[in-house]
Amino acid sequence: MTDHSLSGAMLIGAQAVYGAQTSFRAINPATGLELEPVFGGGGKGEVDRACNLAWAAFDSYRETSNEARATFLETIASEILALGDALIERAVAESGLPRGRIEGERGRTMGQLQMFAALVREGSFVDARIDPALPDRKPLPRVDIRQRHIALGPVGVFGASNFPLAFSVAGGDTASALAAGCPVVVKAHSAHPGTSELVGRAIQAAIAKCGLPEGVFSMLFGAGTDVGTALVEHPHIKAIGFTGSRMGGLALMKAAALRPEPIPVYAEMSSINPVLLMPAALKARAVHMARDFVGSLTLGAGQFCTNPGLLLAVDGPDLDAFLEAAASVLSASAPATMLTPNICRAYTGGVARLAAYAGVKQVAQGLAPNGPNQGQGALFVTDAAAFAANAHLGDEIFGAAALVIRCPDVAAMRALAEKLEGQLTATVQMDAADTALVRTLLPTLERRVGRILINGYPTGVEVNDAMVHGGPFPATSDARSTSVGTLAIQRFLRPVAYQNFPDELLPAALQDANPSHLWRRRNSQFGRD
Amino acid sequence: MTDHSLSGAMLIGAQAVYGAQTSFRAINPATGLELEPVFGGGGKGEVDRACNLAWAAFDSYRETSNEARATFLETIASEILALGDALIERAVAESGLPRGRIEGERGRTMGQLQMFAALVREGSFVDARIDPALPDRKPLPRVDIRQRHIALGPVGVFGASNFPLAFSVAGGDTASALAAGCPVVVKAHSAHPGTSELVGRAIQAAIAKCGLPEGVFSMLFGAGTDVGTALVEHPHIKAIGFTGSRMGGLALMKAAALRPEPIPVYAEMSSINPVLLMPAALKARAVHMARDFVGSLTLGAGQFCTNPGLLLAVDGPDLDAFLEAAASVLSASAPATMLTPNICRAYTGGVARLAAYAGVKQVAQGLAPNGPNQGQGALFVTDAAAFAANAHLGDEIFGAAALVIRCPDVAAMRALAEKLEGQLTATVQMDAADTALVRTLLPTLERRVGRILINGYPTGVEVNDAMVHGGPFPATSDARSTSVGTLAIQRFLRPVAYQNFPDELLPAALQDANPSHLWRRRNSQFGRD
Repeated sequence: MTDHSLSGAMLIGAQAVYGAQTSFRAINPATGLELEPVFGGGGKGEVDRACNLAWAAFDSYRETSNEARATFLETIASEILALGDALIERAVAESGLPRGRIEGERGRTMGQLQMFAALVREGSFVDARIDPALPDRKPLPRVDIRQRHIALGPVGVFGASNFPLAFSVAGGDTASALAAGCPVVVKAHSAHPGTSELVGRAIQAAIAKCGLPEGVFSMLFGAGTDVGTALVEHPHIKAIGFTGSRMGGLALMKAAALRPEPIPVYAEMSSINPVLLMPAALKARAVHMARDFVGSLTLGAGQFCTNPGLLLAVDGPDLDAFLEAAASVLSASAPATMLTPNICRAYTGGVARLAAYAGVKQVAQGLAPNGPNQGQGALFVTDAAAFAANAHLGDEIFGAAALVIRCPDVAAMRALAEKLEGQLTATVQMDAADTALVRTLLPTLERRVGRILINGYPTGVEVNDAMVHGGPFPATSDARSTSVGTLAIQRFLRPVAYQNFPDELLPAALQDANPSHLWRRRNSQFGRD
Repeated sequence: MTDHSLSGAMLIGAQAVYGAQTSFRAINPATGLELEPVFGGGGKGEVDRACNLAWAAFDSYRETSNEARATFLETIASEILALGDALIERAVAESGLPRGRIEGERGRTMGQLQMFAALVREGSFVDARIDPALPDRKPLPRVDIRQRHIALGPVGVFGASNFPLAFSVAGGDTASALAAGCPVVVKAHSAHPGTSELVGRAIQAAIAKCGLPEGVFSMLFGAGTDVGTALVEHPHIKAIGFTGSRMGGLALMKAAALRPEPIPVYAEMSSINPVLLMPAALKARAVHMARDFVGSLTLGAGQFCTNPGLLLAVDGPDLDAFLEAAASVLSASAPATMLTPNICRAYTGGVARLAAYAGVKQVAQGLAPNGPNQGQGALFVTDAAAFAANAHLGDEIFGAAALVIRCPDVAAMRALAEKLEGQLTATVQMDAADTALVRTLLPTLERRVGRILINGYPTGVEVNDAMVHGGPFPATSDARSTSVGTLAIQRFLRPVAYQNFPDELLPAALQDANPSHLWRRRNSQFGRD
């Protein structure tokens, strides 16, 4: 049986290292009380040690067999499960999230690791390409050239506050980077250090079981920004994965761009996820839509990147019916513990600011808080002219607050969507009679967002091949990528060409015999020859 | 018959606009004389006009059928050919490059356009993915999600000095961006404005013939950096393609990162392309290798991004034999006209600086110049300690100059390669007896370069599926990309997910019937169902 008592120490390679630079405790947001133990944060020295270990491990780890890397990812998943209830209880205590949600998130975290294991086994993510020699080509012969993608290098991952498991130490960024063949150095989020220590130890255990070099994974604590800054600036770090605030993401982007060797930053930052209610749908099912909308808005205290914070609809009695129904459901919605005291304060402040803007009217609020750090749902309404006149009405409020915009017509809805900042998602509620109108909206939505939904709600992100959890700036720092789903592995790869190589010096993915039975592009034809 | 007389005007959409901000002429570097006519450079106003037209064209152009876009690319190629000798003569006059080279480059330019036409017709570059609904999944049903890649947006392309056709107005960046569905605004290189005008008019003619919106292409002139800066900063530009100097590329990267909405910059900047001579190969064929090396070094006056400017070998009599043979061939090599007076001055200055560094000895030089703007080949030698002691010995000298490093052993060669900046290529000269040693070098080379060659030379870049003309910073701004070959299209794409869409609202690439017969990933399986 594993010892799950927490030490407060960072994990640097195979070692546990208690940091001496800063110290902090987790807070249970549901009680407002501090939790044991005291965690020790590191500094530049620990970042350097972790990154040097990652660099030392890189060449051997990136060339582990697909089978070995897949087994490693699966072993992490089983080691996380083996943490048992200790993990669930600690994550609940550190996040204020309900037990069912945390159990589901553990399942998702394990599912992601297993999905990347399957992807690595299948192997076609290396995009193998073979253009064989054409010795008789005129005027010049063509030489044999082959290409595969290799791992980019050690990746710095920042744990997110709102997914203590699925977007933290062993979350999507870590899973996709490890799958690509990149060692990972995690800066754990200070809101859930105990959860992080437990999961980090599970990864350590998996490394030992699989006989991999210790530098494949390290995890650092730090109460301020020193550790994170040192991580982004370290010359051995070749990419960054981050989910968090816009301010945090922009700071990382800037630091990465100012390095002597700039590196890519994949920051998922802010999104208000517009929902567009089309006229026929609104007429047919305003009350039903209102109930589902409020359900999505208040899910998890609204603490999702895909929370629907903006709603656009044509003004009129159908929208009034929607608002009336939404107000009724929201008014009865329970307050919910938010992730941290800071997040709760920021939410409350954001709601107060929004309520005070000219032209904004509060439609409803949820039930009043009855404990510490609770957020209360909030629904506001304004019109298109007021929204166009004040850019702050489009600011993200992280939590269960939404703004409804009364628009004169669908053309105005489109014009407004055209001016929104880049978003993770856009949702269209439509009936068959709305089809022609929706068609006029799609070019705008495609340009402005990463995922378009019809007749659903954006919370609840599937993890699969087709998912895009990304979008134009400032939803993310890099519209070319997704942080959820198998496509996320491509963030951590780069192409290398091998010209005129003897077969024995080629990597397996490019050898004539195709020993891994990969899908490859040979003479521009897909096949598994 | 087309009128090939030059107007000196920019091309903004379907218009010819004579710029009033700056004026300049091309110079024939072979004579040092100015050429007619006077070209008029634009300013912010013209950049804005071109980018607004590109934006207006974007939604319709990106959704043209694959067939329509392929035909357009082929039409550009045939319109370039239809320019006939006027294009060849003007490009020769503006570049000082021999007629045969320019004719070859025209063929390459047309070949690139035709290759991207074939890629677009085949269509799998959109990476279509379909995860169908699973209504019976427990605990929650899965909704239908599909994904394709769409064009990123209008692209700003900077013409390169050293490929007046293949990396300029209708070169690789333009061809791959147009193939992806991105309108293009070119800043023509001031060294070959007449060539640019001719090719730009060929693209204009192709747009008219194909009935495409005029904003799909514009071409601007500018004598200073104002036009380029305005282009990178324009909010409608969503990516930049550039081939040129490190200073130029770094300036573009900085400007792009400082935009309110940062955008990707694909800058191919500088590389000294190390060549590693392995002991058995050096022993067996030093003289033969020396001849081929000097041939690659002096090709095209050394004005290739892939020019081999650094050579590493184990010190000893075999290397002496190599150097003696190389000196003999180089000493008889003719001087060659360089592309511009500035490039020639920079080359001459770089050679003089290198010659003056401590520990560097000149081995040979080519025949002396006998006309204006001629570069004279130059070969230097130093040792590993001197190279390690002075970072400037690794600076690129654009032209036919190379530095040979005497290394104590192969381990020292590897240590030295490990410390090099990122490179486009690395070349290994080896015999079978060197195989085990080469194996120890490959991990380093994979990390440091985009293309590894065995027993060839890096000049002469094939254009195909497997080619990587890219590499870690500062060879390029983005190691995840290549600017040559079909993979270059991926620079200008981003993923979009469509959740729960009725079939009729899906793009063709994602419709159930697969009307374009694309390779797609459905339930994680490749197929053309």
